[in-house]
Amino acid sequence: MQRIDTQDELRRMLAAHRELGHSVGLVPTMGALHAGHASLIRRAVEENAVVVVSDFVNPTQFNNPSDLRNYPRTLDQDARLVEMLGATFLFAPSVQEMYPSPDTRVFNLAPLDTVMEGARRPGHFNGVAQIVSKLLELVLPDRAYFGEKDYQQLLIVKQMVRQLGLPSQIVGCPIVREADGLAMSSRNLLLSPECRKAAPSISAALRNALPILSAQGVDAAKQKIANDINATTALRVEYVEMADPETLAPVHEYAPGHAMAFVAVQAGSVRLIDNWKY
Amino acid sequence: MQRIDTQDELRRMLAAHRELGHSVGLVPTMGALHAGHASLIRRAVEENAVVVVSDFVNPTQFNNPSDLRNYPRTLDQDARLVEMLGATFLFAPSVQEMYPSPDTRVFNLAPLDTVMEGARRPGHFNGVAQIVSKLLELVLPDRAYFGEKDYQQLLIVKQMVRQLGLPSQIVGCPIVREADGLAMSSRNLLLSPECRKAAPSISAALRNALPILSAQGVDAAKQKIANDINATTALRVEYVEMADPETLAPVHEYAPGHAMAFVAVQAGSVRLIDNWKY
Repeated sequence: MQRIDTQDELRRMLAAHRELGHSVGLVPTMGALHAGHASLIRRAVEENAVVVVSDFVNPTQFNNPSDLRNYPRTLDQDARLVEMLGATFLFAPSVQEMYPSPDTRVFNLAPLDTVMEGARRPGHFNGVAQIVSKLLELVLPDRAYFGEKDYQQLLIVKQMVRQLGLPSQIVGCPIVREADGLAMSSRNLLLSPECRKAAPSISAALRNALPILSAQGVDAAKQKIANDINATTALRVEYVEMADPETLAPVHEYAPGHAMAFVAVQAGSVRLIDNWKY
Repeated sequence: MQRIDTQDELRRMLAAHRELGHSVGLVPTMGALHAGHASLIRRAVEENAVVVVSDFVNPTQFNNPSDLRNYPRTLDQDARLVEMLGATFLFAPSVQEMYPSPDTRVFNLAPLDTVMEGARRPGHFNGVAQIVSKLLELVLPDRAYFGEKDYQQLLIVKQMVRQLGLPSQIVGCPIVREADGLAMSSRNLLLSPECRKAAPSISAALRNALPILSAQGVDAAKQKIANDINATTALRVEYVEMADPETLAPVHEYAPGHAMAFVAVQAGSVRLIDNWKY
């Protein structure tokens, strides 16, 4: 495994592999790697001859400066793990390297970016589109891997790739959960002990909503999910939405396989998201 | 990933998987996992539905009490890595659990265990055979994975499996090296900075021996390897042998593909081994 921190060097290394006909997989991350990232990297290693893991805390996708400041950074530990997982390159550029001048591009991602996280985190998905498009254009991977924990991001990246006509296949990978059900997230590292203990209530509420969704419909299920989470003192629901898994359009009537619940929850100073397909 | 510390529980969990027809891979380790172990675990995860990584510092294979006492132990870190690599179970039993009473079995592994490591570490391979047979009989894996860094051990385990009529396939996996050529080993953690800096001379000496082996034969090559390593102050050669890769019988004339060099080197208080096929 080789650590690379400049675009030029990565381009040069990948060109050599391309000449040999090697397929290339990309796993874009913001570091603080956990078992969710590991599952993406494992899949990329299985499916590609060469795997680039990028490790870059992208400032343009943070709408909250303290969230950016506090975002966990564990680069040396990440490097060790990336090597163990059999990836070829760890690309960990500086902010200056990725943004030598401000990125003023505005992407048109509506309506996917106008709901849920898009509505609550102004500019977030535009920043995601900026960095992901830069990485895809740099690496030109055959496949790029994204986790379904950030499901709305996954759909938005797919749409951006279509808009830009990029040649990469975007591969979504299932959420990996802790043994108690909490969706893996780098931000879990920042949870207080009390909030960490409370956090599994989020996935439990999602998991337990199916009977009421089938019997009483979407509104009752959304209400039940919110009530179940809010019943835990350490957690406060920001939103619960039920949306179509392809379009993110709000769902009002339940049809099996066509409804997905999305939640954002404040746990102390940490904001957590999760989702569940019914 | 589930941590298990008793034989009974592991047997119970595996029986459930067996009923579902799942294949089982075993990666026996003594912990302090590095990229070499990771490559074994990755391969096991690719080839089996269920993977057991055992993490047990086996006392019966240590002929030197201070080596046993100083052997690095990093169980929590190992567990995190085993989970990231996608293994199913980490089996980390106590000594009492694996040896409720002393194991008095004596294996007949000659002539494989009478040369090289077998000659220098009395009882070592008998201890290896004790623990590996216990693990194979416990897990009954379809495949068990061993690194070629301990090449003599690999051949001995294969012979033991034939002798006992065990149903497992023993899979040997290539040595993984640091960027500077040093063969990955848990004992590398114990090297002083000076010895760590010197240690790549071992693999360099092995790598550079082919021209002299081809031109001047086995004895000259052995002498050259020993001289090259001993030229580094921090390293002292214990032995250099050239042997047949199937039988470990000494090789006196070079035939391509049928000669393998084996070295043991003292680096400060740490004993390192390596090998190279020509």
